Amino acid sequence: MIEQLRSASGRDIRLLCRDKTWTAPTAGLALGYVQANLVIVPQVWAFEFLLFCYRNPRACPLLEVTEPGCPEPRRCAPGADLRTDLPRYCIFQNGQLVAESLELHDFWRDDLVAFLLGCSFSFERALLRAGLPVRHVECQCNVPMYKTNIPCEPAGRLHGSLVVSMRPLKPRQALEACQICSRFPLAHGPPLHWGDPAEIGILDLTRPDFGDPVPIYPGEVPVFWACGVTSQTVLQESGVDFVITHKPGHMFLTDWRDEDLARSQVNCYSF
Amino acid sequence: MIEQLRSASGRDIRLLCRDKTWTAPTAGLALGYVQANLVIVPQVWAFEFLLFCYRNPRACPLLEVTEPGCPEPRRCAPGADLRTDLPRYCIFQNGQLVAESLELHDFWRDDLVAFLLGCSFSFERALLRAGLPVRHVECQCNVPMYKTNIPCEPAGRLHGSLVVSMRPLKPRQALEACQICSRFPLAHGPPLHWGDPAEIGILDLTRPDFGDPVPIYPGEVPVFWACGVTSQTVLQESGVDFVITHKPGHMFLTDWRDEDLARSQVNCYSF
Repeated sequence: MIEQLRSASGRDIRLLCRDKTWTAPTAGLALGYVQANLVIVPQVWAFEFLLFCYRNPRACPLLEVTEPGCPEPRRCAPGADLRTDLPRYCIFQNGQLVAESLELHDFWRDDLVAFLLGCSFSFERALLRAGLPVRHVECQCNVPMYKTNIPCEPAGRLHGSLVVSMRPLKPRQALEACQICSRFPLAHGPPLHWGDPAEIGILDLTRPDFGDPVPIYPGEVPVFWACGVTSQTVLQESGVDFVITHKPGHMFLTDWRDEDLARSQVNCYSF
Repeated sequence: MIEQLRSASGRDIRLLCRDKTWTAPTAGLALGYVQANLVIVPQVWAFEFLLFCYRNPRACPLLEVTEPGCPEPRRCAPGADLRTDLPRYCIFQNGQLVAESLELHDFWRDDLVAFLLGCSFSFERALLRAGLPVRHVECQCNVPMYKTNIPCEPAGRLHGSLVVSMRPLKPRQALEACQICSRFPLAHGPPLHWGDPAEIGILDLTRPDFGDPVPIYPGEVPVFWACGVTSQTVLQESGVDFVITHKPGHMFLTDWRDEDLARSQVNCYSF
């Protein structure tokens, strides 16, 4: 089934999620279609979270924001329903995970605002196409992610530190990755650090805070990108009473193609 | 005095406004420093207006958003006070201009959120440096601005049509202007239309809705850019009860230089 789903469209995958035929992670599905992180907050937090995303665009690149109570992302996936079209959801109250669910009908409210944030799959595919190694793909595990000592720009009551993902590269490869990823500002953009992990507050690369450790081969340096998990840790640590997210790895499939992210039509909303 | 003020800094001009020594338009002052449109709305409208700016970045390119009640734009002008540091302000209630003022102490409230939006001065200076004509500068008048039939992307209750500014150029000059202005997404970016004004709902170029008409010489075509006045017409037409703006032409001077707008540090908030 996975082999067939590699060449499916974003909409195909959404419909399989909607009827609960697909409930697993989405890595490798509908290759070439942009996948998105989902973050849902009550409207009373929506201004602060939108401002947080605007002020921290590397960690939280905004693909779309829905109107309060509206579950349809009309821009990147018209006809989709964010309450049913992802494989799995996590529901948080006061920073604690209180439920995991295949759909949101029991949790949806008229005051909820959904934010879709770009994810690293888009730039990883571009790196692979350029012949650069993506270690956690080679190792068939999750990308390693680390909390750092880099403060995010706060927005109102929202504050916290940046979470980064790490991919080992040779220095020359890291420069090429910087060029490639700069074309994808809506998928976290270029790396923000490389080399000594201690400079950004990471003490032990073999023990990531999220995901799995990966080997670093001789001649390689660790290269760090801002990570969408930042939004979840910030919301949990800042006292937001109610948050819904996708289950990690179980992303939303849009109608956009990776290459669309490099087009002005998408980067610039109306023109 | 104007000659001296051409080489002043953004902060110099702000302080002259603060003690009411300067109360006139800011065109031509502190050359090279980024000037900004000011829009202030109550916090109950802040989410919708921030979303409107995010969805209409050509018309409303965000330089900075302040925390509710805070008059200091800490990012682009630390130490500045938005209540005193512009030459003149306009105060609107229910879409009607109710007062014009040299400062805002009688109007400031703890629930007000200030938005600073990029303005065309930055890209006009880049056009002039490239040897391209900027007709209203040659004519020493205001740029002509027109209401169009292009709908903005609505955001909640905020809706309306795009307002554009117009500069006549030869076709080859227009292409060069497109390249140059693409480097300044925070100053309205590239043009969004050229040629037949009727295609975007403009019936008579000699009668602009705002500003002054300018001549179009043989071989030139009208070239249209999204204009920051859009935000003011949208707020007025959408029933926002209380809005403060700069008086047209009486802009806020930041500490940023025009060239900073092409740097990733500024385009991308924290990194």
